[in-house]
Amino acid sequence: MGAILKTFILKIGGHVLFDEDGNFRVNIIKDYIKVLTEIVASGIMVHIVVGGGINARRYIDILKKFNASNAVMDYVGALVARLNALTFSYILGDIALHIVPNSFDELIRLLPLAYSSKRIIVCGGLQPGQSTIAVAALLAEITKASFLAYATTVEGVYDKDPKVHPDARLLKEITYTELEEILKKQPQTPGKYKLFDKVSLSILKRSKIVSYVFNGLKPNLLMQIVKGENPGTIIRP
Amino acid sequence: MGAILKTFILKIGGHVLFDEDGNFRVNIIKDYIKVLTEIVASGIMVHIVVGGGINARRYIDILKKFNASNAVMDYVGALVARLNALTFSYILGDIALHIVPNSFDELIRLLPLAYSSKRIIVCGGLQPGQSTIAVAALLAEITKASFLAYATTVEGVYDKDPKVHPDARLLKEITYTELEEILKKQPQTPGKYKLFDKVSLSILKRSKIVSYVFNGLKPNLLMQIVKGENPGTIIRP
Amino acid sequence: MGAILKTFILKIGGHVLFDEDGNFRVNIIKDYIKVLTEIVASGIMVHIVVGGGINARRYIDILKKFNASNAVMDYVGALVARLNALTFSYILGDIALHIVPNSFDELIRLLPLAYSSKRIIVCGGLQPGQSTIAVAALLAEITKASFLAYATTVEGVYDKDPKVHPDARLLKEITYTELEEILKKQPQTPGKYKLFDKVSLSILKRSKIVSYVFNGLKPNLLMQIVKGENPGTIIRP
Amino acid sequence: MGAILKTFILKIGGHVLFDEDGNFRVNIIKDYIKVLTEIVASGIMVHIVVGGGINARRYIDILKKFNASNAVMDYVGALVARLNALTFSYILGDIALHIVPNSFDELIRLLPLAYSSKRIIVCGGLQPGQSTIAVAALLAEITKASFLAYATTVEGVYDKDPKVHPDARLLKEITYTELEEILKKQPQTPGKYKLFDKVSLSILKRSKIVSYVFNGLKPNLLMQIVKGENPGTIIRP
Amino acid sequence: MGAILKTFILKIGGHVLFDEDGNFRVNIIKDYIKVLTEIVASGIMVHIVVGGGINARRYIDILKKFNASNAVMDYVGALVARLNALTFSYILGDIALHIVPNSFDELIRLLPLAYSSKRIIVCGGLQPGQSTIAVAALLAEITKASFLAYATTVEGVYDKDPKVHPDARLLKEITYTELEEILKKQPQTPGKYKLFDKVSLSILKRSKIVSYVFNGLKPNLLMQIVKGENPGTIIRP
Amino acid sequence: MGAILKTFILKIGGHVLFDEDGNFRVNIIKDYIKVLTEIVASGIMVHIVVGGGINARRYIDILKKFNASNAVMDYVGALVARLNALTFSYILGDIALHIVPNSFDELIRLLPLAYSSKRIIVCGGLQPGQSTIAVAALLAEITKASFLAYATTVEGVYDKDPKVHPDARLLKEITYTELEEILKKQPQTPGKYKLFDKVSLSILKRSKIVSYVFNGLKPNLLMQIVKGENPGTIIRP
Repeated sequence: MGAILKTFILKIGGHVLFDEDGNFRVNIIKDYIKVLTEIVASGIMVHIVVGGGINARRYIDILKKFNASNAVMDYVGALVARLNALTFSYILGDIALHIVPNSFDELIRLLPLAYSSKRIIVCGGLQPGQSTIAVAALLAEITKASFLAYATTVEGVYDKDPKVHPDARLLKEITYTELEEILKKQPQTPGKYKLFDKVSLSILKRSKIVSYVFNGLKPNLLMQIVKGENPGTIIRP
Repeated sequence: MGAILKTFILKIGGHVLFDEDGNFRVNIIKDYIKVLTEIVASGIMVHIVVGGGINARRYIDILKKFNASNAVMDYVGALVARLNALTFSYILGDIALHIVPNSFDELIRLLPLAYSSKRIIVCGGLQPGQSTIAVAALLAEITKASFLAYATTVEGVYDKDPKVHPDARLLKEITYTELEEILKKQPQTPGKYKLFDKVSLSILKRSKIVSYVFNGLKPNLLMQIVKGENPGTIIRP
Repeated sequence: MGAILKTFILKIGGHVLFDEDGNFRVNIIKDYIKVLTEIVASGIMVHIVVGGGINARRYIDILKKFNASNAVMDYVGALVARLNALTFSYILGDIALHIVPNSFDELIRLLPLAYSSKRIIVCGGLQPGQSTIAVAALLAEITKASFLAYATTVEGVYDKDPKVHPDARLLKEITYTELEEILKKQPQTPGKYKLFDKVSLSILKRSKIVSYVFNGLKPNLLMQIVKGENPGTIIRP
Repeated sequence: MGAILKTFILKIGGHVLFDEDGNFRVNIIKDYIKVLTEIVASGIMVHIVVGGGINARRYIDILKKFNASNAVMDYVGALVARLNALTFSYILGDIALHIVPNSFDELIRLLPLAYSSKRIIVCGGLQPGQSTIAVAALLAEITKASFLAYATTVEGVYDKDPKVHPDARLLKEITYTELEEILKKQPQTPGKYKLFDKVSLSILKRSKIVSYVFNGLKPNLLMQIVKGENPGTIIRP
Repeated sequence: MGAILKTFILKIGGHVLFDEDGNFRVNIIKDYIKVLTEIVASGIMVHIVVGGGINARRYIDILKKFNASNAVMDYVGALVARLNALTFSYILGDIALHIVPNSFDELIRLLPLAYSSKRIIVCGGLQPGQSTIAVAALLAEITKASFLAYATTVEGVYDKDPKVHPDARLLKEITYTELEEILKKQPQTPGKYKLFDKVSLSILKRSKIVSYVFNGLKPNLLMQIVKGENPGTIIRP
Repeated sequence: MGAILKTFILKIGGHVLFDEDGNFRVNIIKDYIKVLTEIVASGIMVHIVVGGGINARRYIDILKKFNASNAVMDYVGALVARLNALTFSYILGDIALHIVPNSFDELIRLLPLAYSSKRIIVCGGLQPGQSTIAVAALLAEITKASFLAYATTVEGVYDKDPKVHPDARLLKEITYTELEEILKKQPQTPGKYKLFDKVSLSILKRSKIVSYVFNGLKPNLLMQIVKGENPGTIIRP
């Protein structure tokens, strides 16, 4: 597909869409609409994966109280991410497809329509056992994307968790192998995944796809990345 | 289908599942599990329709800020109700099917599986322009259900809105035509439907299906209805 | 979508497609092909909803003899309307999509393809409890259509049923509220809906969509409506 | 599947369901309900394929007037047969699944549900280029059916077309090879297939499935076939 | 569809894709990519049907050892052809849709996307009881294709089987009726169909579609056919 | 689901189904039919996941020659595993569902049918970026399975790769953490996954599911596992 339109993938964390009280960040999303409309108008194609955020957390907490399996909790979390994706696609208006895939099979069947109509696909989660970043990595691989941009709530990748360690240091450039070492120190629970999960890391490594992690609360940074700058952290294969 | 198993339909309002702060009413739902398990064990079949509640409201409010059409807002509200339905089906465990229909066509295709596996179907919304009570009325019609039980947050149908008028009077027994007169006085907005919408009323009237409106925060009242009592309001064709 | 192409919705009653003996009105349909081809060529998009007509009536009458529920009769009526829609789409040739949606979810998933291929969507019924005019109203709402044109077998809306009262008077301009008053006097049976049902009226009112009712046996009147004239009745919110 | 329940396939021609004026043969169908209910109650499974009949003819005639391709005419004929199938399934009530397959893939996915719920599958057409008897032959093959019973409007297979030749002689027992010789003399047009088409004959021959052709206007003859008698023509591999 | 783009259908036998040892003919396929890219670039649309080849044979042989029905063997053969089709579509890159239809209903729903994105549809088998050439004939009929080109492993149609009779004579021009006489002498087994099966012949005859049979191991011959030459055998209605 | 029937999951590696020359191991599979029939008859439910084996390898090798992305190669590998699954399900006969899920969403929708018809679900791959063992782990989690049995071509888990190191030692009992250390030393390529991939390990650990690795070429060992013995390696959380 890369031959037709230069493509990149944008992962937007659920916590970029919703603040900690569950309020939708209206002004930031308005900025994303502007930036994305400009990008699409310039002839670049972007597909977007959104996370489940606080609403996924809410449903998972309910299921936990009733002893649901991890697979069910993960699955419902993926469905909330799909709901966020559809909502976001409607907010984007005519530059997006208003169809959210329920499986990888559906996702690849949407690609020709996306390219012939020049509309962004917005995805949520696909299945349990992986986070939405794994969906983004698969999309990057299947579209032979130039890079993966990851909009999160911090400035980039740190050597330690910046929410716990005030002396955490922002890393401007690392490799996936170095990133794996950093992530190894953090635990994983359903619906609350780390920046990158194991599936996404092995996909990005094997297909040598560069990632940019940036502060998603500043949508203009995305334009900098498209122009070849690195406003946060660049992760190389 | 009525020939195989005596069936009734239960509509559970979104505000019965979630309180005003968006917290899930865990203890009440535990009581529903008990009551419904007992009902199914006694050889009676029940299908359930759940509303969107406060989470539907949240997504609709976001879309309103971005000038989405009423159809889109209604649609996303229906999707949240489907999410609530799937969550509720998992909470019910082995007495429910964990499959939520996306359309009327899918719903009728689920019925044979529900009856051969003796499992409850839990539905959310089907399409814009109608509330989840219309889905319940359609289900009642297609399964030739004995009655429709409506779990809401008040004791039954009042002559005026009891949340506005402290002198509102609970009506023990009315007709659909009388109910229409009462409802005519209230306005309707997307995602915030009145007790019964127009579609549901015309279905319930034309197929002469009796409804019971009761206080859904007291799940044991459902057992009284199954036994032929009227703990709230009975509405006759 | 309105931003991309100016869109309007055309509802064609089943009795416009088929005469009372069940014969297809070949010459009138040939005129529709001409008019619609011209409209699409001028850069205006139109989506069409067709009714079930006499063939729906035939199947519903069979089911009634075997005591089918109203929901089943309505449903089979909707399927006949879908069959009419597919047939009509093939007759229209390359200006139409030859895909008829089975649900609202499928309908909205067809929209991007319709716009990127500049082809008309032709729909039948979606679910029981509503007529095909409700489908047309939903389509108008979701596509932010400029107006809804309703091709029927009379000249427009009358103050009384013109088939019963020879002194019925054609109304050139009314409001939805006034229309509701007129319709309130007529009974409703499965497969034999009134001009507008309750679902369609509440959608058209809430989204402030103008409707034109015109004599569908004169397809050229549609061109007049597109040019801003009112050859029958205009209904305002 | 044969191991679980002894199965046979019943093909009911469209002209058995509808008379030449397009009227549904209500009394004959009531007899089929009785006979089929008795058969299912005795522990034998039957699946049914119905034809398109006069309504298929009506739609095909319309399409012909607008120069549709043979594939489109065949396809719409298959859809009308599916509509007849759904209608017939509802008429049969609780002994039938109310789900009509749209493709062979869907058909085989329905089989486990049919056997676990002990309900008859009712099919229409699957694709252009073959008649509904080919669907019946495929069903017979995939279910390892004991035989195929073909309800038509004549007493069985004749040496010549009995509607044209008054001296045509009823054949009590023939082979598929002999049948092919007889059929070779008749032309074939879309929507108006001969008793057996080429696909069905090659399937029935290769899998050595016995067929019974009988007068479908006398539903009790079906019971005779189930009991091992031959009230019309038996066709052997 | 013919009005939009001149279309033809290409059937590629499984033995053209894979040699007798099951190795993929990489160089020949590379030539097909060149030829097909050139054809599509010149504004001609082509849809492709591929056979199951030796891999279908492998799976069918397994099933035969376990006494599977002919329908199941045929069906699994059709699935292998679909797998070949998807693989071939990915190899063709951006000139093909990477979506393989599972039924005729899905196939016709893909056509508008194929035409609006100017991408080739690649199909495998659709259902038991017919070979992939029947799928090609149906596609030719529904797209009103100019002709059907059949890539096989011999130079064209011979008066006898050239693999058995060294004195078999290549026929430059025959009719379908003559072809039927030639084919009548060969037996038919599941997964190992003759050049044309009965379904394809009756479709090609009734819609008067010309076929070209050519040596598919020389992909440049396809270009000759597109230019109006006959490098193998032409079959006329 | 565990409440209804005690369930376990069986993963059968592609190399157990097919030998190195691509021949199907007919006698071994016949033993599996016996063992599985006995297990199902005893009231225990088992679901099966099969790998892609040498046929997956063949298709992946073709795609690699044409520079397909890793995601496409993985995806086609998953499709071959689905083909193997369907073939295996037909071989198992009436104790298996003959429906292979294409996604996680479809998989969970099959579960109620599997339990009400007491039939085994046979799965292949679901999506790129994970091997079929991840599907088995998800199935174990969602069905609250008692354990996961892994049929491979060696006797169990060794401290080193036994195909490379003749002095490799069979481990009778290890933990997932110890297994991860052993696997860390081996590289991973598309279609050629290690015993367990990262997704499966994190699922099995988080849900505390015990696995048995055994020599799948001796199907009777499976019966030993069902009886509580450990004929190979047991892996504990």
